[in-house]
Amino acid sequence: MGKGDETKRSILDQALRMASTQGLQHVTIGLLAGAAGLSKSGLFAHFRSKEQLQLAVLREASDRFVNKVIAPALREARGAPRLRALFENWMRWDTVEFPGGCPFQAAANELDDQPGPVRDYLVETQGDLVDTLTTVAQAGVEAGRLRADLEPRQLAFDFLGIFLAYHYMFRLLRAADATSLTRASFEALLARAVV
Amino acid sequence: MGKGDETKRSILDQALRMASTQGLQHVTIGLLAGAAGLSKSGLFAHFRSKEQLQLAVLREASDRFVNKVIAPALREARGAPRLRALFENWMRWDTVEFPGGCPFQAAANELDDQPGPVRDYLVETQGDLVDTLTTVAQAGVEAGRLRADLEPRQLAFDFLGIFLAYHYMFRLLRAADATSLTRASFEALLARAVV
Repeated sequence: MGKGDETKRSILDQALRMASTQGLQHVTIGLLAGAAGLSKSGLFAHFRSKEQLQLAVLREASDRFVNKVIAPALREARGAPRLRALFENWMRWDTVEFPGGCPFQAAANELDDQPGPVRDYLVETQGDLVDTLTTVAQAGVEAGRLRADLEPRQLAFDFLGIFLAYHYMFRLLRAADATSLTRASFEALLARAVV
Repeated sequence: MGKGDETKRSILDQALRMASTQGLQHVTIGLLAGAAGLSKSGLFAHFRSKEQLQLAVLREASDRFVNKVIAPALREARGAPRLRALFENWMRWDTVEFPGGCPFQAAANELDDQPGPVRDYLVETQGDLVDTLTTVAQAGVEAGRLRADLEPRQLAFDFLGIFLAYHYMFRLLRAADATSLTRASFEALLARAVV
């Protein structure tokens, strides 16, 4: 990684933290320059526009999510071990990795009615995520480790709902039992899914 | 309702639509004046500050949610009929009532890391909502219509997760099967809960 790449990576790190705590729409070249202690013209040389910057932030978040959540889970055995790894990695992602929670969730509500390339990219990555969850469930069924009558996309939907409810209870309501409710919900989902 | 109240109601109606489609932080006296075709000074006389305006919007949304979702459900019999009414009323709320989806959900991600009275109010109403769901489940258990070993707050968590996943699949991903996945998930939750 050259010095330019390293600088860009450290800028994106700062930008991701902003997206996580304040939302993606606050990640502008001006605000990021202030937060990162860099000149606007320097940042502009890296990203060209607010839109390019926001796309770079989502791309970086997506790469990290694949590296930290998806890829390690896919190395686990099909069925319960893989689902459990996904769950644990994802919990870490939404709790430890980002001070303000998953940057995709922050962006999702902001962008759901804001057409444009940033929304398009978000929709594509989040659609990929639902597809990945569906594939993981399907692979578990094919391996004979999840129930044959399991609807893979329904499991993906329920899995997603657990994380969205966790985010809500933990980030917004700061509920003391957010984690235990989330774990109980996941364990019940898994118990219903396994053979 | 006096003319002043009627004007205020119609302004709040416009403000709620803005909150639903663009997020609560775009509901400012300046932007609302433009959208409602009113003078900024006239709006200022009604609301005094951006913060007061946003609080009024959330209070109005909360009143409507109680009137349209909660109250009619509480008139249904305990157990499955009451849960089903909550589900149907809520689906209507998040689909038909608001062009851009539930204004609380739009506000929740914006405000989760933004301390202040608007966030405090949102947290209070959303905490009340989880409590209401818990009480509805508890009443069903006490009436002997939901399983005695049901954890009411767990049901509330799972119910919330279904709506959050619906919102995500429908609003963000525009998934064609968002509604059927949501209904299937609710029916499965209900089937597990009833005696």
